[in-house]
Amino acid sequence: MQQASGHTLKAFDEDIERLRALISQMGGLAEHAIGEAMRCLIQRDTEGAARIVLDDKKLDALEIETERRAVQLIALRAPMAGDLRDVVAALKISGVVERIGDYAKNIAKRVPLLENAAKIEPISLLPEMARIATEMVHDVLDAFIERDAQAAVRVCERDQAVDDFYDSIFRTLLTHMMENPHNIGQSAHLLFVAKNLERVGDHATNIAEMVYYAATGQHMADRPGKSATAP
Amino acid sequence: MQQASGHTLKAFDEDIERLRALISQMGGLAEHAIGEAMRCLIQRDTEGAARIVLDDKKLDALEIETERRAVQLIALRAPMAGDLRDVVAALKISGVVERIGDYAKNIAKRVPLLENAAKIEPISLLPEMARIATEMVHDVLDAFIERDAQAAVRVCERDQAVDDFYDSIFRTLLTHMMENPHNIGQSAHLLFVAKNLERVGDHATNIAEMVYYAATGQHMADRPGKSATAP
Repeated sequence: MQQASGHTLKAFDEDIERLRALISQMGGLAEHAIGEAMRCLIQRDTEGAARIVLDDKKLDALEIETERRAVQLIALRAPMAGDLRDVVAALKISGVVERIGDYAKNIAKRVPLLENAAKIEPISLLPEMARIATEMVHDVLDAFIERDAQAAVRVCERDQAVDDFYDSIFRTLLTHMMENPHNIGQSAHLLFVAKNLERVGDHATNIAEMVYYAATGQHMADRPGKSATAP
Repeated sequence: MQQASGHTLKAFDEDIERLRALISQMGGLAEHAIGEAMRCLIQRDTEGAARIVLDDKKLDALEIETERRAVQLIALRAPMAGDLRDVVAALKISGVVERIGDYAKNIAKRVPLLENAAKIEPISLLPEMARIATEMVHDVLDAFIERDAQAAVRVCERDQAVDDFYDSIFRTLLTHMMENPHNIGQSAHLLFVAKNLERVGDHATNIAEMVYYAATGQHMADRPGKSATAP
């Protein structure tokens, strides 16, 4: 905190806590949406999938609310240095969490197109891949709440596991496509589901970079565990 | 402009012009990268593709520079209302343009994997799809520079053409995969190239929404031409 006045300090703290709470709320919704999308995919629950698509509007509304409050906070409280970095991070992180929700929505939209997917073997790997990716999202948002730069670095280190899942699923799906050309449409949709989950992991590392910068004022260059993005 | 002082006004104007110039520069690099990625894909120019991947670092650096200047501008000039919306839009738009550059990089990374792709018919459709998507990016950044909300709405209306290209290429590639199972890996990579270009169009419409909000203070709800995102 830069302000000397106790009153201003308290007002800023309350405002930034409210921003952090909004980000937590968004993170909870995004994690739930990814988990639900996996459940609907495995159980072929098209009604549940339709609800995920509808519920995504809540994330959009919370992103707008976060931006409105962050901009108001900057305008009214004129935070400096670390406080300002925190507010800017909240603004940017809410945008990334909203995009993570979009991936859940995209997966949910494929559920009705995947009525025969249970027969395609790598589908059994997707929920575990999703679990790791959503855990990364959960932990990186905790790191933001705690302003814990080292926890953010540890989240990045786990992205390799998600990328490895993706590479394995990609190869298995191509083999499945060659052996089952009648099922190629289903396999193509599963390829995109796997890609969406891989992107969730990437977005968790993007948030980790924002958390690191907000907490330290330094960019997380050459962070440990940084891997080239799979094409 | 909210400030009464001519001196403050001039300083803010110079700062925001510098931000706009940075966004333009980023947009130019991103457009060039997409166009080059298409050229390398068609001409199987793996060296050119490697340069695109390297050049993406320029966009990353410009995004950091834009954020640094935007945050400094907010801290030093305390802009209000429309000016503040403009600065926040610049901050967010630079992040989206950086992601558009990432799509070019992702396409470029697939070039060495696509040595036989010239035989796959829909590859001839990709450059035209890329042209429409990059024109959208170009025009929406012009709309930001000009603070032209209506131009932003017109950009959104063109996203349907990109989505239609994607649907057509998706179907054609699936047919090609069924008929040429030995070529399935190449086709799968082209599916992702098409998806990346479809996402460039989506990102142009995301920027359009930011431009609209910055210029009007209203969210572009139920904008004309808004289409459900293809799964």
